Amino acid sequence: MKFTLSTLAELTHTEFKGDEKTALTNIATLEDARAGDISFVSNPKYKRQLQSTQASVVILSAQLAEQYAGNALISKDPYLTFAKVVRLFNPSKKQLASIHPTTVIDETATIAKHVNIAANVVIEKGVNIQEGVQIGAGCVIGENSSIDQNTRLNANVTLYSDSQIGKNVIIHSGVVIGADGFGFVLQDDKSWYKILQIGNVVIGDDVEIGANTTIDRAALGSTKIANGVKIDNQVIIGHNVQINEDTIMPGGSLVAGSTRIGKRCQIGGGVAIAGHLEIADDVMITGRSMVTNSLKSAGVYSSGITTEENSKWRRNAARFRSLDKMAKQLNQLEKSFIKTQEKENTNGE
Amino acid sequence: MKFTLSTLAELTHTEFKGDEKTALTNIATLEDARAGDISFVSNPKYKRQLQSTQASVVILSAQLAEQYAGNALISKDPYLTFAKVVRLFNPSKKQLASIHPTTVIDETATIAKHVNIAANVVIEKGVNIQEGVQIGAGCVIGENSSIDQNTRLNANVTLYSDSQIGKNVIIHSGVVIGADGFGFVLQDDKSWYKILQIGNVVIGDDVEIGANTTIDRAALGSTKIANGVKIDNQVIIGHNVQINEDTIMPGGSLVAGSTRIGKRCQIGGGVAIAGHLEIADDVMITGRSMVTNSLKSAGVYSSGITTEENSKWRRNAARFRSLDKMAKQLNQLEKSFIKTQEKENTNGE
Amino acid sequence: MKFTLSTLAELTHTEFKGDEKTALTNIATLEDARAGDISFVSNPKYKRQLQSTQASVVILSAQLAEQYAGNALISKDPYLTFAKVVRLFNPSKKQLASIHPTTVIDETATIAKHVNIAANVVIEKGVNIQEGVQIGAGCVIGENSSIDQNTRLNANVTLYSDSQIGKNVIIHSGVVIGADGFGFVLQDDKSWYKILQIGNVVIGDDVEIGANTTIDRAALGSTKIANGVKIDNQVIIGHNVQINEDTIMPGGSLVAGSTRIGKRCQIGGGVAIAGHLEIADDVMITGRSMVTNSLKSAGVYSSGITTEENSKWRRNAARFRSLDKMAKQLNQLEKSFIKTQEKENTNGE
Repeated sequence: MKFTLSTLAELTHTEFKGDEKTALTNIATLEDARAGDISFVSNPKYKRQLQSTQASVVILSAQLAEQYAGNALISKDPYLTFAKVVRLFNPSKKQLASIHPTTVIDETATIAKHVNIAANVVIEKGVNIQEGVQIGAGCVIGENSSIDQNTRLNANVTLYSDSQIGKNVIIHSGVVIGADGFGFVLQDDKSWYKILQIGNVVIGDDVEIGANTTIDRAALGSTKIANGVKIDNQVIIGHNVQINEDTIMPGGSLVAGSTRIGKRCQIGGGVAIAGHLEIADDVMITGRSMVTNSLKSAGVYSSGITTEENSKWRRNAARFRSLDKMAKQLNQLEKSFIKTQEKENTNGE
Repeated sequence: MKFTLSTLAELTHTEFKGDEKTALTNIATLEDARAGDISFVSNPKYKRQLQSTQASVVILSAQLAEQYAGNALISKDPYLTFAKVVRLFNPSKKQLASIHPTTVIDETATIAKHVNIAANVVIEKGVNIQEGVQIGAGCVIGENSSIDQNTRLNANVTLYSDSQIGKNVIIHSGVVIGADGFGFVLQDDKSWYKILQIGNVVIGDDVEIGANTTIDRAALGSTKIANGVKIDNQVIIGHNVQINEDTIMPGGSLVAGSTRIGKRCQIGGGVAIAGHLEIADDVMITGRSMVTNSLKSAGVYSSGITTEENSKWRRNAARFRSLDKMAKQLNQLEKSFIKTQEKENTNGE
Repeated sequence: MKFTLSTLAELTHTEFKGDEKTALTNIATLEDARAGDISFVSNPKYKRQLQSTQASVVILSAQLAEQYAGNALISKDPYLTFAKVVRLFNPSKKQLASIHPTTVIDETATIAKHVNIAANVVIEKGVNIQEGVQIGAGCVIGENSSIDQNTRLNANVTLYSDSQIGKNVIIHSGVVIGADGFGFVLQDDKSWYKILQIGNVVIGDDVEIGANTTIDRAALGSTKIANGVKIDNQVIIGHNVQINEDTIMPGGSLVAGSTRIGKRCQIGGGVAIAGHLEIADDVMITGRSMVTNSLKSAGVYSSGITTEENSKWRRNAARFRSLDKMAKQLNQLEKSFIKTQEKENTNGE
């Protein structure tokens, strides 16, 4: 692909400054860019690299563009403009409809005409695959599951029975959807009685699910991932969880069973949320936090202790274990001090 | 399936109150239940939903049943009775013995007569598969592994060579059993020398292993998961670990190499346990704890800090880093105060 | 395999004491060893088992050998010698070059002569496989990926397009390399706009990657894992991360996007490192730490609180939430005390 600066400005609805005919053939970071490349600054942290970049054009805010002598695409949101430019340079390849001969498809499955199913895919009884769906090699689609239009499963995804996947969803390799929730009842003899997990998983439209993430089927009813939710790699979603519209969950986060997470939440990487909680809309939780109570109003929440030198940490962490004692000691000392003060004041009168 | 209230009471060895002929065709949560559904209350948290439920019958404790006007199945353990009712409504389907023609089975493998092996399964040299085993599509069973009676592997499970799996085990998709333990020796040139991992994994009877969990083979000897252990999704079990009978480990927990965990332990989600430790029988560890020392007696153990508003957390977490200094300051102040008190007391005499 | 004590000493360049003709046929732990077995002590913690071991020979440091009456192989580094002995007893089996007939290989792929490709492997367009490569059953190798000499992929590994894998690499089952990085831009309507991830993953020589680990492709450019890096199970490596030579990352660790980790670092299990950070060479981070700032010099770093009895922990953790208040209370009290001291001193003069 090749664009001129002025064409890119037109296609991305942005302004530009500099030579409108500048030809652009590639996208690169400020550091790696060469002549012919377009780059961007969205994080001011990387601003200093502007001075040395070889990029032919840089996507900048109006403010940064003023300080920059070279060609620029000027955007209110340089990061979004960059994302749009990446798509212009990488238009999605039209996949020819095809079903690989090694695919094993049960005769009761319904497969739309224009789909793309790679080698060694297994499609079980009663499955319904809509137009434009792409299924990567080695995927297994369990009985009575449905996959709506234009959804893409990368290689080696597993859907258990009864999973419902919406439109325009992207599911990455190694994802397991619909495995049994973790439900057992402790018996008198201290062994565990398995509760059959007879619900399913329902995933809305425009969802993305990262590699090796697991989303368990409900015990009863459905585990629900709403439209526009973005889930990263190795996230653990327990049974009967509900995650509402446009919430985002980076890698390694964990949501235990029956918790409901609101809309537009931003959960940090490695956050663990206990079961049976309610997280309100527009909650932001910083990375690695541990959530054991419902968060009932929008806001930013955190927990955890950040790294320090081991020698200091050892001393501080040891003190943590007598923090309650320390607090009592402080309160006692304060009380004694006030008492002596009062006494002296009395004496002094 | 269809049951009357009195039949269910009989089959689950419970009492009932209300109309014995009430016909039940389905199971649902209190919230979702309609006429014809049976529901339950085990967590008192959901008790208030009793007033509005449309369920035809609710499984309740004797105490709650007294407060409830509708039909009820009365149980000492409503959750266990619910689990039993779920099984009555969902009897396991008799799978016809079948081996899919796409399966690749080494000629030296021993396969019992009544097994169910789905498409694209690969069974290597010397494998032994017993009666009633079900193996989902895309599973790979490594050399000389054995799978005992009535065990079920869901799709896309990987067993490395020499794995031994007991009876009535359920293994979920994406599980990897028997990959190399993480064993390296640091050499003088600062590179790592791999220790070949020549042990295996041995899994007992009635074990369940959640999706995408990994259990590494031993360096020497065996990594051992005893009878009745229940492991959730994305759990990490290092080499030479031993987990004893009926212990339960929810999602995202991690046990480093050579640690032994006792019987009937309840480990919380996201708990990390360091290597070479001993965890006694009947230990309970709350979610997200970090265990760096052996826990030598039964009891409940915890660590971690729960979430608060970010602005408060920032200040508290910053103070943590001078906790040791703060403790010294407090001790010093207390000392000075006591000294002045003694002096005054002396002066006052 | 069978070795005498003197032969083993010769082959591992170590000294020995005792009967040079002692015949050794197997390796075992001190506890499990029987006559004919060689064992070792590297962790002094297991030293007491020396008294009761049935091993015919034990690999020991010179110091321990002096205290031991039996046959010994005497090594400056008993653990490394043990690792070498394990390899002597388990020479790698020569795999006959073979490509299983069920393999699906695109006609544009280049496959060297002496490779070993198991059943149901899928190799896409333009892939390049070098001499000595072994690919386990069910692996999917995405378009234009390359795998260099003597690398081994275990069963069910997924490489996305454009992945470059070096020589002598070991990749365990369930690993996903090259899935999309987690990159989205928040739009005015609060939905997320996906940033196409057009970079790739480049992995050096002598790397090992544990089961179910995920390494995301770069947004632009490459995610880079340098020579000699060892990564354990279920590790999460974000887009554009760089991990330099001989760094080691045990299970469950997480590195968010664009972070660079130096050479020879030892990251503990379950450590989470935020994005856009720099970790210097030779940094050691203890298990379960949370790293939110760059670590600019070599050293040992830690965070986290270890487990204690739940009843104590509850009180301490509650106090943590008023730690800032407590610090202010302490400072205020100290100030008041000093003031009264000064006053008294003035009065006293």
